[in-house]
Amino acid sequence: MSAIDHLIHANESYVATFPGPRPIRPKLRTTIITCMDSRLDLFGALGLDIGDAHLIRNAGGIPTDDVLRSLAISQRTLGTREVVIIHHTECGMDGFDDDAFRAQLTAESGDEPPWRVPGFTDLREDTRRSVETVRSCAWIPHRDDVRGFVFDVATARIEEVS
Amino acid sequence: MSAIDHLIHANESYVATFPGPRPIRPKLRTTIITCMDSRLDLFGALGLDIGDAHLIRNAGGIPTDDVLRSLAISQRTLGTREVVIIHHTECGMDGFDDDAFRAQLTAESGDEPPWRVPGFTDLREDTRRSVETVRSCAWIPHRDDVRGFVFDVATARIEEVS
Repeated sequence: MSAIDHLIHANESYVATFPGPRPIRPKLRTTIITCMDSRLDLFGALGLDIGDAHLIRNAGGIPTDDVLRSLAISQRTLGTREVVIIHHTECGMDGFDDDAFRAQLTAESGDEPPWRVPGFTDLREDTRRSVETVRSCAWIPHRDDVRGFVFDVATARIEEVS
Repeated sequence: MSAIDHLIHANESYVATFPGPRPIRPKLRTTIITCMDSRLDLFGALGLDIGDAHLIRNAGGIPTDDVLRSLAISQRTLGTREVVIIHHTECGMDGFDDDAFRAQLTAESGDEPPWRVPGFTDLREDTRRSVETVRSCAWIPHRDDVRGFVFDVATARIEEVS
Protein backbone atom coordinates (compact mmCIF):
# COMPACT_ATOMS: atom_id res chain seq x y z
CA MET A 1 0.00 0.00 0.00
CA SER A 2 1.40 3.42 -0.98
CA ALA A 3 1.51 6.34 1.43
CA ILE A 4 -1.32 7.96 -0.51
CA ASP A 5 -3.52 4.88 -0.09
CA HIS A 6 -3.04 5.17 3.67
CA LEU A 7 -4.25 8.78 3.54
CA ILE A 8 -7.36 7.78 1.56
CA HIS A 9 -8.13 5.12 4.14
CA ALA A 10 -7.71 7.60 7.02
CA ASN A 11 -10.12 10.00 5.31
CA GLU A 12 -12.95 7.48 5.76
CA SER A 13 -12.71 7.75 9.56
CA TYR A 14 -12.56 11.53 9.40
CA VAL A 15 -15.73 11.74 7.30
CA ALA A 16 -17.64 9.86 10.00
CA THR A 17 -16.96 12.55 12.61
CA PHE A 18 -16.81 15.67 10.39
CA PRO A 19 -19.01 18.43 11.85
CA GLY A 20 -20.42 19.49 8.47
CA PRO A 21 -20.29 22.59 6.28
CA ARG A 22 -18.91 25.95 7.41
CA PRO A 23 -18.99 29.31 5.55
CA ILE A 24 -16.35 30.03 2.93
CA ARG A 25 -15.32 33.27 4.71
CA PRO A 26 -12.88 32.52 7.55
CA LYS A 27 -14.50 33.07 10.96
CA LEU A 28 -11.40 34.62 12.58
CA ARG A 29 -10.82 36.83 9.51
CA THR A 30 -7.19 35.79 9.69
CA THR A 31 -4.64 34.47 7.17
CA ILE A 32 -1.64 32.43 8.27
CA ILE A 33 1.47 32.27 6.08
CA THR A 34 3.94 29.57 6.98
CA CYS A 35 6.35 26.92 5.74
CA MET A 36 5.41 23.58 4.14
CA ASP A 37 7.40 21.82 6.91
CA SER A 38 5.80 18.56 8.02
CA ARG A 39 6.05 19.37 11.72
CA LEU A 40 3.73 22.38 11.60
CA ASP A 41 0.16 21.29 12.35
CA LEU A 42 -1.44 24.73 12.42
CA PHE A 43 -4.86 23.50 13.53
CA GLY A 44 -3.28 21.88 16.57
CA ALA A 45 -0.57 24.45 17.28
CA LEU A 46 -2.93 27.46 17.17
CA GLY A 47 -6.16 25.83 18.31
CA LEU A 48 -7.86 26.41 14.96
CA ASP A 49 -11.28 25.04 14.22
CA ILE A 50 -12.63 24.13 10.77
CA GLY A 51 -13.46 27.38 8.96
CA ASP A 52 -11.34 29.70 11.14
CA ALA A 53 -8.43 30.91 8.98
CA HIS A 54 -6.76 30.72 5.58
CA LEU A 55 -3.47 28.81 5.50
CA ILE A 56 -0.89 29.72 2.85
CA ARG A 57 2.24 27.56 2.83
CA ASN A 58 5.36 27.28 0.69
CA ALA A 59 9.02 26.35 1.14
CA GLY A 60 10.12 28.78 3.88
CA GLY A 61 6.85 30.60 4.54
CA ILE A 62 8.27 33.37 2.38
CA PRO A 63 5.89 36.04 0.97
CA THR A 64 6.61 35.42 -2.71
CA ASP A 65 4.41 36.96 -5.40
CA ASP A 66 2.23 33.84 -5.33
CA VAL A 67 1.74 34.20 -1.58
CA LEU A 68 0.85 37.88 -2.03
CA ARG A 69 -1.63 36.85 -4.77
CA SER A 70 -3.27 34.41 -2.37
CA LEU A 71 -3.29 36.94 0.48
CA ALA A 72 -4.80 39.61 -1.78
CA ILE A 73 -7.62 37.19 -2.70
CA SER A 74 -8.03 36.23 0.96
CA GLN A 75 -8.57 39.84 2.03
CA ARG A 76 -10.34 41.27 -1.01
CA THR A 77 -12.78 38.50 -1.81
CA LEU A 78 -13.05 36.49 1.42
CA GLY A 79 -12.95 39.14 4.13
CA THR A 80 -9.81 38.43 6.15
CA ARG A 81 -8.11 41.29 8.04
CA GLU A 82 -5.26 39.99 10.22
CA VAL A 83 -2.08 38.27 8.99
CA VAL A 84 0.19 35.88 10.88
CA ILE A 85 3.59 34.92 9.46
CA ILE A 86 5.26 31.91 11.09
CA HIS A 87 8.78 30.78 10.29
CA HIS A 88 10.39 27.95 12.23
CA THR A 89 13.59 26.50 13.62
CA GLU A 90 15.47 23.86 11.61
CA CYS A 91 14.03 25.14 8.32
CA GLY A 92 15.24 23.76 4.98
CA MET A 93 15.56 27.35 3.71
CA ASP A 94 18.13 28.16 6.42
CA GLY A 95 21.38 28.43 4.49
CA PHE A 96 19.69 27.39 1.25
CA ASP A 97 21.50 28.52 -1.92
CA ASP A 98 18.78 29.39 -4.44
CA ASP A 99 21.27 30.40 -7.15
CA ALA A 100 22.98 27.00 -6.99
CA PHE A 101 19.60 25.25 -6.88
CA ARG A 102 18.32 27.05 -9.98
CA ALA A 103 21.60 26.38 -11.78
CA GLN A 104 21.21 22.67 -10.99
CA LEU A 105 17.62 22.59 -12.27
CA THR A 106 18.63 24.47 -15.40
CA ALA A 107 21.52 22.12 -16.10
CA GLU A 108 19.39 19.00 -15.61
CA SER A 109 16.21 20.13 -17.36
CA GLY A 110 17.40 22.71 -19.88
CA ASP A 111 14.66 24.97 -18.54
CA GLU A 112 15.63 27.88 -16.29
CA PRO A 113 13.35 28.44 -13.28
CA PRO A 114 11.82 31.94 -13.17
CA TRP A 115 11.91 32.42 -9.39
CA ARG A 116 14.42 34.26 -7.22
CA VAL A 117 13.73 33.14 -3.65
CA PRO A 118 16.94 33.15 -1.62
CA GLY A 119 17.32 31.25 1.63
CA PHE A 120 18.27 33.00 4.87
CA THR A 121 20.88 32.82 7.60
CA ASP A 122 19.14 34.63 10.48
CA LEU A 123 15.72 33.15 11.25
CA ARG A 124 14.34 36.04 13.31
CA GLU A 125 15.65 38.69 10.95
CA ASP A 126 14.14 36.81 7.99
CA THR A 127 10.79 36.63 9.75
CA ARG A 128 10.87 40.39 10.31
CA ARG A 129 11.76 40.92 6.66
CA SER A 130 8.78 38.80 5.62
CA VAL A 131 6.50 40.89 7.85
CA GLU A 132 7.86 44.06 6.23
CA THR A 133 7.24 42.63 2.76
CA VAL A 134 3.55 42.20 3.56
CA ARG A 135 3.29 45.52 5.38
CA SER A 136 4.69 47.35 2.35
CA CYS A 137 2.64 45.53 -0.31
CA ALA A 138 0.14 47.90 -1.91
CA TRP A 139 -1.99 44.99 -3.24
CA ILE A 140 -2.94 44.07 0.34
CA PRO A 141 -5.65 46.38 1.70
CA HIS A 142 -5.40 45.48 5.43
CA ARG A 143 -1.87 45.78 6.82
CA ASP A 144 -2.34 47.13 10.35
CA ASP A 145 -2.27 43.67 11.96
CA VAL A 146 0.63 41.75 10.44
CA ARG A 147 2.58 39.88 13.08
CA GLY A 148 5.60 37.59 12.84
CA PHE A 149 6.42 34.50 14.90
CA VAL A 150 9.01 31.75 15.12
CA PHE A 151 7.80 28.18 15.78
CA ASP A 152 10.22 25.91 17.63
CA VAL A 153 9.95 22.44 16.08
CA ALA A 154 11.33 20.84 19.26
CA THR A 155 8.76 22.34 21.65
CA ALA A 156 5.95 23.66 19.36
CA ARG A 157 6.14 26.98 21.15
CA ILE A 158 5.61 30.15 19.06
CA GLU A 159 7.58 33.29 19.89
CA GLU A 160 6.57 36.71 18.55
CA VAL A 161 9.47 38.47 16.84
CA SER A 162 7.87 41.34 14.91
CA MET B 1 -8.44 40.51 22.35
CA SER B 2 -7.54 40.15 18.66
CA ALA B 3 -7.91 36.87 16.77
CA ILE B 4 -4.14 36.52 16.80
CA ASP B 5 -4.00 36.84 20.60
CA HIS B 6 -6.46 33.94 20.82
CA LEU B 7 -4.12 31.81 18.68
CA ILE B 8 -1.14 32.66 20.92
CA HIS B 9 -3.14 31.61 23.96
CA ALA B 10 -4.17 28.33 22.34
CA ASN B 11 -0.53 27.57 21.55
CA GLU B 12 0.25 27.34 25.27
CA SER B 13 -2.06 24.35 25.67
CA TYR B 14 -0.62 22.67 22.58
CA VAL B 15 2.94 23.00 23.87
CA ALA B 16 1.98 21.06 27.01
CA THR B 17 1.01 17.96 25.00
CA PHE B 18 3.41 18.24 22.04
CA PRO B 19 5.17 14.89 21.47
CA GLY B 20 8.57 16.47 20.79
CA PRO B 21 10.98 16.74 17.87
CA ARG B 22 10.64 14.76 14.64
CA PRO B 23 13.08 14.53 11.70
CA ILE B 24 13.03 17.26 9.05
CA ARG B 25 12.50 14.69 6.25
CA PRO B 26 8.80 13.76 5.97
CA LYS B 27 8.16 10.20 7.17
CA LEU B 28 5.61 9.37 4.44
CA ARG B 29 7.84 10.93 1.77
CA THR B 30 4.77 12.70 0.47
CA THR B 31 3.93 16.30 -0.49
CA ILE B 32 0.38 17.59 -0.46
CA ILE B 33 -0.61 20.59 -2.60
CA THR B 34 -3.94 22.14 -1.76
CA CYS B 35 -5.94 25.35 -1.35
CA MET B 36 -5.61 27.86 1.51
CA ASP B 37 -9.33 27.32 2.25
CA SER B 38 -10.11 27.42 5.98
CA ARG B 39 -12.16 24.22 5.91
CA LEU B 40 -9.28 21.94 4.90
CA ASP B 41 -7.61 20.52 8.00
CA LEU B 42 -5.18 18.16 6.27
CA PHE B 43 -3.90 16.57 9.47
CA GLY B 44 -7.44 15.59 10.39
CA ALA B 45 -8.78 14.83 6.93
CA LEU B 46 -5.89 12.55 5.96
CA GLY B 47 -4.89 11.20 9.36
CA LEU B 48 -1.49 12.89 9.24
CA ASP B 49 0.86 12.80 12.19
CA ILE B 50 3.49 15.44 13.02
CA GLY B 51 6.40 14.94 10.62
CA ASP B 52 4.51 12.94 7.98
CA ALA B 53 4.19 15.15 4.89
CA HIS B 54 4.93 18.55 3.38
CA LEU B 55 1.90 20.81 2.92
CA ILE B 56 1.99 23.44 0.17
CA ARG B 57 -1.05 25.73 0.02
CA ASN B 58 -2.11 28.74 -2.05
CA ALA B 59 -5.33 30.23 -3.39
CA GLY B 60 -6.77 27.34 -5.41
CA GLY B 61 -4.14 24.68 -4.76
CA ILE B 62 -2.81 25.57 -8.20
CA PRO B 63 0.73 24.45 -9.16
CA THR B 64 2.15 27.91 -9.83
CA ASP B 65 5.89 28.43 -10.26
CA ASP B 66 6.20 29.04 -6.51
CA VAL B 67 4.47 25.74 -5.77
CA LEU B 68 6.79 23.96 -8.22
CA ARG B 69 9.76 25.64 -6.49
CA SER B 70 8.57 24.32 -3.14
CA LEU B 71 7.88 20.84 -4.54
CA ALA B 72 11.32 20.73 -6.19
CA ILE B 73 12.92 21.54 -2.82
CA SER B 74 10.68 18.99 -1.09
CA GLN B 75 11.82 16.19 -3.39
CA ARG B 76 15.43 17.18 -4.07
CA THR B 77 16.56 18.22 -0.62
CA LEU B 78 14.08 16.57 1.75
CA GLY B 79 13.42 13.19 0.17
CA THR B 80 9.73 13.18 -0.76
CA ARG B 81 8.51 10.95 -3.61
CA GLU B 82 4.71 10.99 -3.86
CA VAL B 83 2.51 14.01 -4.63
CA VAL B 84 -1.14 14.57 -3.72
CA ILE B 85 -3.09 17.46 -5.26
CA ILE B 86 -6.39 18.29 -3.56
CA HIS B 87 -8.86 20.83 -4.91
CA HIS B 88 -12.23 21.32 -3.26
CA THR B 89 -15.87 22.17 -3.74
CA GLU B 90 -17.05 25.75 -3.18
CA CYS B 91 -13.59 27.15 -3.99
CA GLY B 92 -12.99 30.89 -4.27
CA MET B 93 -11.09 30.26 -7.52
CA ASP B 94 -14.20 28.74 -9.14
CA GLY B 95 -15.26 31.38 -11.66
CA PHE B 96 -12.55 33.78 -10.46
CA ASP B 97 -11.52 36.40 -13.05
CA ASP B 98 -7.77 36.89 -12.61
CA ASP B 99 -7.56 39.48 -15.41
CA ALA B 100 -10.16 41.67 -13.73
CA PHE B 101 -8.52 41.14 -10.34
CA ARG B 102 -5.08 42.19 -11.60
CA ALA B 103 -6.60 45.20 -13.37
CA GLN B 104 -8.23 46.24 -10.09
CA LEU B 105 -4.95 45.89 -8.15
CA THR B 106 -3.09 47.82 -10.84
CA ALA B 107 -5.65 50.63 -10.83
CA GLU B 108 -5.61 50.95 -7.04
CA SER B 109 -1.89 50.53 -6.38
CA GLY B 110 -0.25 51.69 -9.61
CA ASP B 111 1.79 48.49 -9.51
CA GLU B 112 0.87 45.69 -11.92
CA PRO B 113 0.92 42.18 -10.42
CA PRO B 114 3.29 39.80 -12.23
CA TRP B 115 1.19 36.65 -11.92
CA ARG B 116 -1.17 35.01 -14.41
CA VAL B 117 -3.24 32.51 -12.42
CA PRO B 118 -6.70 32.13 -13.92
CA GLY B 119 -9.61 30.66 -12.02
CA PHE B 120 -11.53 27.64 -13.31
CA THR B 121 -15.06 26.61 -14.17
CA ASP B 122 -14.81 22.80 -14.00
CA LEU B 123 -13.42 21.60 -10.67
CA ARG B 124 -12.54 18.05 -11.71
CA GLU B 125 -11.04 19.10 -15.03
CA ASP B 126 -8.96 21.75 -13.26
CA THR B 127 -7.70 19.18 -10.77
CA ARG B 128 -6.64 16.93 -13.65
CA ARG B 129 -4.91 19.87 -15.32
CA SER B 130 -2.98 20.58 -12.11
CA VAL B 131 -1.88 16.94 -11.96
CA GLU B 132 -0.67 17.17 -15.56
CA THR B 133 1.28 20.35 -14.77
CA VAL B 134 3.24 18.51 -12.09
CA ARG B 135 3.65 15.35 -14.19
CA SER B 136 5.13 17.38 -17.03
CA CYS B 137 7.45 19.55 -14.93
CA ALA B 138 11.09 18.69 -15.62
CA TRP B 139 12.26 20.32 -12.36
CA ILE B 140 10.47 17.60 -10.37
CA PRO B 141 12.47 14.36 -10.29
CA HIS B 142 9.74 11.99 -9.01
CA ARG B 143 6.54 12.13 -11.06
CA ASP B 144 5.30 8.52 -11.13
CA ASP B 145 2.99 8.97 -8.15
CA VAL B 146 1.08 12.22 -8.66
CA ARG B 147 -2.59 11.81 -7.82
CA GLY B 148 -5.48 14.28 -7.87
CA PHE B 149 -8.46 14.49 -5.52
CA VAL B 150 -11.48 16.66 -4.85
CA PHE B 151 -12.39 17.42 -1.22
CA ASP B 152 -16.07 18.01 -0.50
CA VAL B 153 -16.31 20.82 2.08
CA ALA B 154 -19.78 19.64 3.14
CA THR B 155 -18.80 16.04 3.93
CA ALA B 156 -14.95 16.11 4.11
CA ARG B 157 -14.84 13.15 1.74
CA ILE B 158 -12.01 13.04 -0.82
CA GLU B 159 -12.69 11.64 -4.28
CA GLU B 160 -9.86 10.63 -6.62
CA VAL B 161 -10.23 12.21 -10.05
CA SER B 162 -6.88 11.71 -11.75
